[in-house]
Amino acid sequence: MSSSFGTIFRVTTFGESHGGAVGAVVDGCPPLLALTEADIQPQLDRRRPGQSALTTPRGELDVVRILSGTENGVTFGTPIALVVANRDTKPGDYAEMSNVPRPSHADFTYQMKYGVRAASGGGRSSARETIGRVAAGAIAEKWLRLKAGIEIVAWVSGVGAVESPDLVGAGLTRLAVDANAVRCPDAAAAKLMEAEILAARDAKDSVGGIITCVCRGVPPGWGEPVFHKLEAVLAQAMLSLPATKGFEIGSGFAGTRQRGSAHNDAFVQKPGGLGTRTNYSGGIQGGISNGEPIVFRVAFKPPATISQPQPTADFDGQPVTLEAKGRHDPCVVPRAVPIVEAMAALVLADAALQQQARS
Amino acid sequence: MSSSFGTIFRVTTFGESHGGAVGAVVDGCPPLLALTEADIQPQLDRRRPGQSALTTPRGELDVVRILSGTENGVTFGTPIALVVANRDTKPGDYAEMSNVPRPSHADFTYQMKYGVRAASGGGRSSARETIGRVAAGAIAEKWLRLKAGIEIVAWVSGVGAVESPDLVGAGLTRLAVDANAVRCPDAAAAKLMEAEILAARDAKDSVGGIITCVCRGVPPGWGEPVFHKLEAVLAQAMLSLPATKGFEIGSGFAGTRQRGSAHNDAFVQKPGGLGTRTNYSGGIQGGISNGEPIVFRVAFKPPATISQPQPTADFDGQPVTLEAKGRHDPCVVPRAVPIVEAMAALVLADAALQQQARS
Amino acid sequence: MSSSFGTIFRVTTFGESHGGAVGAVVDGCPPLLALTEADIQPQLDRRRPGQSALTTPRGELDVVRILSGTENGVTFGTPIALVVANRDTKPGDYAEMSNVPRPSHADFTYQMKYGVRAASGGGRSSARETIGRVAAGAIAEKWLRLKAGIEIVAWVSGVGAVESPDLVGAGLTRLAVDANAVRCPDAAAAKLMEAEILAARDAKDSVGGIITCVCRGVPPGWGEPVFHKLEAVLAQAMLSLPATKGFEIGSGFAGTRQRGSAHNDAFVQKPGGLGTRTNYSGGIQGGISNGEPIVFRVAFKPPATISQPQPTADFDGQPVTLEAKGRHDPCVVPRAVPIVEAMAALVLADAALQQQARS
Amino acid sequence: MSSSFGTIFRVTTFGESHGGAVGAVVDGCPPLLALTEADIQPQLDRRRPGQSALTTPRGELDVVRILSGTENGVTFGTPIALVVANRDTKPGDYAEMSNVPRPSHADFTYQMKYGVRAASGGGRSSARETIGRVAAGAIAEKWLRLKAGIEIVAWVSGVGAVESPDLVGAGLTRLAVDANAVRCPDAAAAKLMEAEILAARDAKDSVGGIITCVCRGVPPGWGEPVFHKLEAVLAQAMLSLPATKGFEIGSGFAGTRQRGSAHNDAFVQKPGGLGTRTNYSGGIQGGISNGEPIVFRVAFKPPATISQPQPTADFDGQPVTLEAKGRHDPCVVPRAVPIVEAMAALVLADAALQQQARS
Repeated sequence: MSSSFGTIFRVTTFGESHGGAVGAVVDGCPPLLALTEADIQPQLDRRRPGQSALTTPRGELDVVRILSGTENGVTFGTPIALVVANRDTKPGDYAEMSNVPRPSHADFTYQMKYGVRAASGGGRSSARETIGRVAAGAIAEKWLRLKAGIEIVAWVSGVGAVESPDLVGAGLTRLAVDANAVRCPDAAAAKLMEAEILAARDAKDSVGGIITCVCRGVPPGWGEPVFHKLEAVLAQAMLSLPATKGFEIGSGFAGTRQRGSAHNDAFVQKPGGLGTRTNYSGGIQGGISNGEPIVFRVAFKPPATISQPQPTADFDGQPVTLEAKGRHDPCVVPRAVPIVEAMAALVLADAALQQQARS
Repeated sequence: MSSSFGTIFRVTTFGESHGGAVGAVVDGCPPLLALTEADIQPQLDRRRPGQSALTTPRGELDVVRILSGTENGVTFGTPIALVVANRDTKPGDYAEMSNVPRPSHADFTYQMKYGVRAASGGGRSSARETIGRVAAGAIAEKWLRLKAGIEIVAWVSGVGAVESPDLVGAGLTRLAVDANAVRCPDAAAAKLMEAEILAARDAKDSVGGIITCVCRGVPPGWGEPVFHKLEAVLAQAMLSLPATKGFEIGSGFAGTRQRGSAHNDAFVQKPGGLGTRTNYSGGIQGGISNGEPIVFRVAFKPPATISQPQPTADFDGQPVTLEAKGRHDPCVVPRAVPIVEAMAALVLADAALQQQARS
Repeated sequence: MSSSFGTIFRVTTFGESHGGAVGAVVDGCPPLLALTEADIQPQLDRRRPGQSALTTPRGELDVVRILSGTENGVTFGTPIALVVANRDTKPGDYAEMSNVPRPSHADFTYQMKYGVRAASGGGRSSARETIGRVAAGAIAEKWLRLKAGIEIVAWVSGVGAVESPDLVGAGLTRLAVDANAVRCPDAAAAKLMEAEILAARDAKDSVGGIITCVCRGVPPGWGEPVFHKLEAVLAQAMLSLPATKGFEIGSGFAGTRQRGSAHNDAFVQKPGGLGTRTNYSGGIQGGISNGEPIVFRVAFKPPATISQPQPTADFDGQPVTLEAKGRHDPCVVPRAVPIVEAMAALVLADAALQQQARS
Repeated sequence: MSSSFGTIFRVTTFGESHGGAVGAVVDGCPPLLALTEADIQPQLDRRRPGQSALTTPRGELDVVRILSGTENGVTFGTPIALVVANRDTKPGDYAEMSNVPRPSHADFTYQMKYGVRAASGGGRSSARETIGRVAAGAIAEKWLRLKAGIEIVAWVSGVGAVESPDLVGAGLTRLAVDANAVRCPDAAAAKLMEAEILAARDAKDSVGGIITCVCRGVPPGWGEPVFHKLEAVLAQAMLSLPATKGFEIGSGFAGTRQRGSAHNDAFVQKPGGLGTRTNYSGGIQGGISNGEPIVFRVAFKPPATISQPQPTADFDGQPVTLEAKGRHDPCVVPRAVPIVEAMAALVLADAALQQQARS
């Protein structure tokens, strides 16, 4: 069950990076949701490789097909199987690495855990696994939008040492986010980030980054204490993404430096009901949404695959110098934006259905 | 099921802060583990209130009783019910707050979610809920120690603006951690932290902090890709704790500023097998333990309950000034140390059993 | 998790027959349900030993205590911990059986599975384990009654060779069922059954029986295809009870002898909507309730513990003659009536909440 | 999650009878199992329509394709996606039934539950849904055979009023079962059963039947008390199959008529360890396998679809006479044999892995 996520709105992903296909089965999506592939493809297009000079040139179109669960463009409430074929697989690229576990990749740990691993690419640890998540997340997102008017927008807020200004309250749209290839809606910061990524690429290196995500319109009452607190499940969702190293909700680590008198979010009457003056809580209190925007940040490490020679050891412990082939992103965060949104949508849709069960 | 955690080694907690009792049921603990209350009480003692001037004066002894699952000091492999009575409940302290949701507490969100909430204290959102976790975690920890020689040690690495030096590689023991009341094993930093906490308390205020945790001796191969990656489940576990705002594994947010060539953990032969020269990965690659120490950090916000007057609004949206009573910690991190350790133990024991299933 | 049952309305039971206590934690019960121990005790009283000459003389009062999840007689929506102390434990009765696995008991299989077993009584395989189920089921039942007007009534329809007439359509109440000690509402059959049980007891033997259960008022639409079809979950629930050997829904095994033209339940307009003329389906079609009464039957074997000498083998394979002590029922079905009702209630409450999640 | 089954060895099925494809994702299959489509196809061939005059003429070849989870004929331990395309769909056959719920079908209940249903065929309630189960079960079965030498053999033991002699102890093989089209290995009974099925077909009617299944070689210790007792999960598995009405383990309903002194299975030394002289328990005691053959029976009703006119009512409650088109089996049990075996294999593989986790 480790490839499944969610209690009621539940997605199961499958597929290796160089196998026949990747995809997902979504069980528990409510019936009577208008749904065709056209609802799903746009987020896959935002995720797919080869979009810009900032991403891997692997040439995948990533066209999704719905195999079940809908008829005449409407969901049945039964499992929705989603499949995307793998086309541009180049197993040969990996042949010489078979006895060398790539540093900070999962070659070593998969081999230790399973006693076997994919001969090419990262298998299940590849970012291609996230295709199933993005497809499933697009369904969750459509349901959230129609059901509750929820908007989920993520963007790149950091690349290497470059940080964007705080845009949490700016009412950003995906259109604004997609205005540039790096997906940072602050034009000046975006330029610097793009330069940082290209510099890393030119140095046969890679660079990390940060994604900020805001979920607007979530009503109070979603999230299941105590182990399925909304921020806990968001944290699991985000840390289950490849290359992630950290998660913050609301004030995050910076909040640890504050005094309670400054950090407390005082209540205040708002048009829709009781709200808070500030939002250090990040829209969640006691594991339950409070009606304010949900705000979180996710840290992504620099991609492990770099083209420069790396001294390391092979599986037998012998020192070797690894020169990786394969096609990879110098920085994952531009393409990870729709993935973060997808996981947020999956978390929220499941929380919504669990709360509906109670009503 | 939201009060349950784990797939095979599974804990279910119960209890409100001012009800009859708090506790847990542990299902899936392997049989034939030597176990009595004496194995559990020490971590509860490290967690309980009233240990020092830094903590709430609420006078609970928190004596645990095992109701089932053992006989003659050995586990059966059946559910272990653990109960701790609530004794020092003072419902009266909360009477005047019934129409005022405390800022950054869960009063408002519980009311919105359930339509009812505990009249006194935080109910399930109280830190007393963690008693069941600590008791269950002590069992997991004992099993991990006997089965695999695993050591889990957490300590306070930040309070407000005070940070301790990096002690991850110092081979710390709990004895060293408990050398002072603040549970920071660097004596100089501990003094500053203690001053910070007492200053906050004297200002009728509170302050946040950071806990760092190291798990030593975890063999390669634990953790279940893709949604139950070890860091993902640790993140869920930690963000399910009251007052947490962030989680980092290995390099964390700082790692986003690095280049891949610096961040990659090169492999190197070590006595027990293949290891890594550096540990920016934090002991986990691709969601699976790699044999290096697992290292993570958890951010705790300043406690929401402070004694100074706070302007806020009542449930009807009317402005009020709240002066909280009740007994509370000015900083949660000293007492949260065993709680973080407990959650880490629960995560690891479950990951171990899932990996055993595969063998 | 094997001691947990249900997806949203979820019960976890704990406790051995001769340990400190037995009980359950109910997670997922909706908030704002009026609930005190008085709602639970009556079904425990119907289950408890020593009610009549037909049952074991073990003298347990089985008084339940609610430890959490309620305040002022109303549920919070949080886990409800229920505890019943074990009082009349007589470990000595079992001392001489320690090396002889009792035939058709679980001594051998527990030993093989866990490598250890309870020194006295059946541990978790004892019928005392069902106390937690009955307590939890009483909560589910109350919610079902208030929420949807559902009535669950079970009775003894067979003891040994004695069968009661078909009473499924008789609109039976629990009062009618409890009119005699054997809990068969047909007075003539009840007399014969009672004689059968007493004859078995006097012969130091035991006898099996059948319980029929009807759930009235279940609306159409409950039950989750495909693996959680309503009859599938009922079957699991019933076969998880000690001493059960079979389950039938609607026409059951007898239905296999029918032709489709006779077995099909034709639709017909009824006051509340579309109904069926006959009910061979037992109120469920395609795993989903259809609004007709849900009707099922459960087979219970003759209790394994009998007082007459039994030739068998000890754990070392040596032939021995076993003369059991301990206090046991000559027939379990009279006391199993509330247990079957409890499990039916747990299944239905969970199905109801899952369907609510979808709406 | 209602389309998922199992805790560790976990299958999720998808697909409607007249949609694009049916299939399954198997998560938790151990790594390093030799596996290709050739291991799966034979059981699908035994299940597929059009095998003989006894089955529906729908012309499906049901060729399975593995999309993920294997490479070079070996499993990775990652999700195995299995897909079978639907080819011979004839939506037109169902057009005139759109406002008439077919008696004893799931048309009415799906409509009531989901507010929508498949325009053609039974959607998820169709027997085509079992293709995913059979494919997944073939994988489980291969693992069980290689890991523990387990053999699972089911056969038709009843059709209408015709019963086969008791063949439980006959050491039957699948070859013997497949010696005739009806899949009853007793030749004389098979002839009568075949005549019964053809008579029903010729009468534009259908007939029910019973399948008996034996699992040989299951070691002691599998099965998870208390809610996941082996017989409980088998019961759930079998009652989740379309058209099932009953389940018996060991002595079943007949056992209720026995005295304990006759029903108890005395222990006796056997070559492999302690065994039982008789097997009224059906190979399971206290929910845990005891090393004896696991024996159970499953009741299947007469198929609901018959070609003769049926008086019934439409969705508006108006009386109508229904004459069904579509292509259907006059008796499901011959084709259900591999389906029962598949579900048994899924149950046992999951139980095995859960027990391994404990070791």
